[in-house]
Amino acid sequence: MHLQIATISNIPRLTRTFSKSLPNPATFHQNFHINHIIKLLHIPPSHSILLYEGAFTDDGFDNRITRLFGTRYPIIQAGMIWASGWKLASAVSSAGGLGLIGAGSMYPAILREHIRHCKEATDKPFGVNLPLLYPDIDQHVQVILEEGVPIVFTSAGNPKTWTARLKEAGIKVVHVVSSAKFAKKSEDAGVDAVVAEGFEAGGHNGREETTTMCLIPAVRPAITIPLIAAGGIASGRAMLAAMALGAEGVQVGSRFVCTPEASSHIAFKEAIVQAGEGDTMLSMKSLTPVRLLKNHFFQQVREAEERGATPVELEDLLGRARAKRGMFEGDMQEGELEIGQVSAHIREIKPAAEIVAELWDDFGKAARQPFAW
Amino acid sequence: MHLQIATISNIPRLTRTFSKSLPNPATFHQNFHINHIIKLLHIPPSHSILLYEGAFTDDGFDNRITRLFGTRYPIIQAGMIWASGWKLASAVSSAGGLGLIGAGSMYPAILREHIRHCKEATDKPFGVNLPLLYPDIDQHVQVILEEGVPIVFTSAGNPKTWTARLKEAGIKVVHVVSSAKFAKKSEDAGVDAVVAEGFEAGGHNGREETTTMCLIPAVRPAITIPLIAAGGIASGRAMLAAMALGAEGVQVGSRFVCTPEASSHIAFKEAIVQAGEGDTMLSMKSLTPVRLLKNHFFQQVREAEERGATPVELEDLLGRARAKRGMFEGDMQEGELEIGQVSAHIREIKPAAEIVAELWDDFGKAARQPFAW
Repeated sequence: MHLQIATISNIPRLTRTFSKSLPNPATFHQNFHINHIIKLLHIPPSHSILLYEGAFTDDGFDNRITRLFGTRYPIIQAGMIWASGWKLASAVSSAGGLGLIGAGSMYPAILREHIRHCKEATDKPFGVNLPLLYPDIDQHVQVILEEGVPIVFTSAGNPKTWTARLKEAGIKVVHVVSSAKFAKKSEDAGVDAVVAEGFEAGGHNGREETTTMCLIPAVRPAITIPLIAAGGIASGRAMLAAMALGAEGVQVGSRFVCTPEASSHIAFKEAIVQAGEGDTMLSMKSLTPVRLLKNHFFQQVREAEERGATPVELEDLLGRARAKRGMFEGDMQEGELEIGQVSAHIREIKPAAEIVAELWDDFGKAARQPFAW
Repeated sequence: MHLQIATISNIPRLTRTFSKSLPNPATFHQNFHINHIIKLLHIPPSHSILLYEGAFTDDGFDNRITRLFGTRYPIIQAGMIWASGWKLASAVSSAGGLGLIGAGSMYPAILREHIRHCKEATDKPFGVNLPLLYPDIDQHVQVILEEGVPIVFTSAGNPKTWTARLKEAGIKVVHVVSSAKFAKKSEDAGVDAVVAEGFEAGGHNGREETTTMCLIPAVRPAITIPLIAAGGIASGRAMLAAMALGAEGVQVGSRFVCTPEASSHIAFKEAIVQAGEGDTMLSMKSLTPVRLLKNHFFQQVREAEERGATPVELEDLLGRARAKRGMFEGDMQEGELEIGQVSAHIREIKPAAEIVAELWDDFGKAARQPFAW
């Protein structure tokens, strides 16, 4: 555990008191974790005690998120339907982030194949994103247990249902939420960390419409477990912003769709590169809110909503397999295209490893020089 | 101009080249602004040249925003209807921020009174927020010119119409936008700076629904003039996040409504303190999108929208003086209550000077220790 001097120097009373008792104050910074100092000095718990801290290391970052997952960087690639199979997940994991296989668009047998390929393709930790409302959820969990997946992100459901079972098997469990209330419920359910996803995120989204800027500071004081920010993050600067707000890591979705490794249709990737400001919108609020790239299907939904369509009418309009048709098969007009607001910033398709390296590089630069451009 | 060593050290090539030619490299950091170095070394303009930088000073901050306004801190209090009169504006300005009088809810004679009181109450710079769609806009401008107001923030209109006239009189002009496209138009119109306001902000809002997290990184590369972030900012950590994203200052609205100095009705201030997550929502999208605190009026609008009401029907429902009735007269059920999503974080009413001091203090702590909590 290496602690930056800058971090410790912010608790001057502690450092002065303690370092005086050391023969060589310089060794103090290398050898003592702040929690050791707090313990040794018998400081009572109060707001002055750190809940967590993080620091750059020689080749990455050290904080509760990188320790929890065993990754080099606190960067997680979101498990997205029709986008993140083993190719994307293993590329991100090999590059130092945490890659997630998106189980939501896979039959159990397909999920098993992807997990096996991922294990072959990388010796680094990876995980599976598991939407809890999936009809074959029991079979998915069975595959995950049998294949020894080390990390599972659950979403769209009650974290109480599966957390204990997964944790018994030694799996690290993270739940995705869009409010402080459900973050607390997830902590109570025993998860290891929480992803808080803001309104700007692609795909399914919270009814409160809380943005990342407002959500992270709301969730932070509600829980003590590690917090990962999602929604609107596709650059090292946004990563720094999220961490300044109280997150210990970031989950990046949209940016990783525009990679050769993503299984998304090339027409969808190109449409994201072309997208500008205002080109995504939260849709189908009376059903399940979902952020979509605007196209003919989106316009049909909007017109239906404007004339006061019922949820049943919207379900009929949605039909079956719209998401696959759009994101996987490349029907840019009639398909459902789930992507985040941050698509407006994405200008090219490039390998996942390059994206991870750029995120990390820009994050480091921004951290050293947050007030310059 | 005092420049942090940390800032300069990020341009190692420049510093090495230049400091070698100095007899005492230590004096280099104190005496030379980075732009001097760039000029002296004949470096051609490129992406490696800084557009701006900022640094803490002994009693505040030095960057393009504090220099533009002559304030100690890069903190602006938003000019809000029925909230920010001379009492709030002068309190914020005296505390080191930039206070703005909100002209949108004032007759020209009332605006003149507020400007005069503000000049008596503080010897620090202050400004006026001027919604350009106001019917008596000519008279408002006349009052501003006659009273020698040094700074004007314009909003809700075309920046081309009034910028030249105001700047001829030596007034600093800032325009409020919600997209990169209009930020560029504002720069072209000759304004001195831009406020980019995200979806989470209270009151009137952009149709693109771009959040602060996505808006600031979109606006930053579109303009070269100073950029102020607004929407979702009520803490020093959110301030750091906004600046990490590319803003050089922040405009804080909702937080300053909950002050004794705000002219808002006490019932409204207390309702904000009680508000939790999901308690505000963007409303009246087919008319002019506005973020409101949920109450009976809001529900009526929502029901009307859900059954497909026309803009004319919504206008009838809105009627006249709804905003005054709610925010100024304290009708919490039938009034229009404009407030930001960040109201969920506001826990008490406290003096404006305390809020400024806390923002500054927390911003400094966060900047020193962004990866700890």
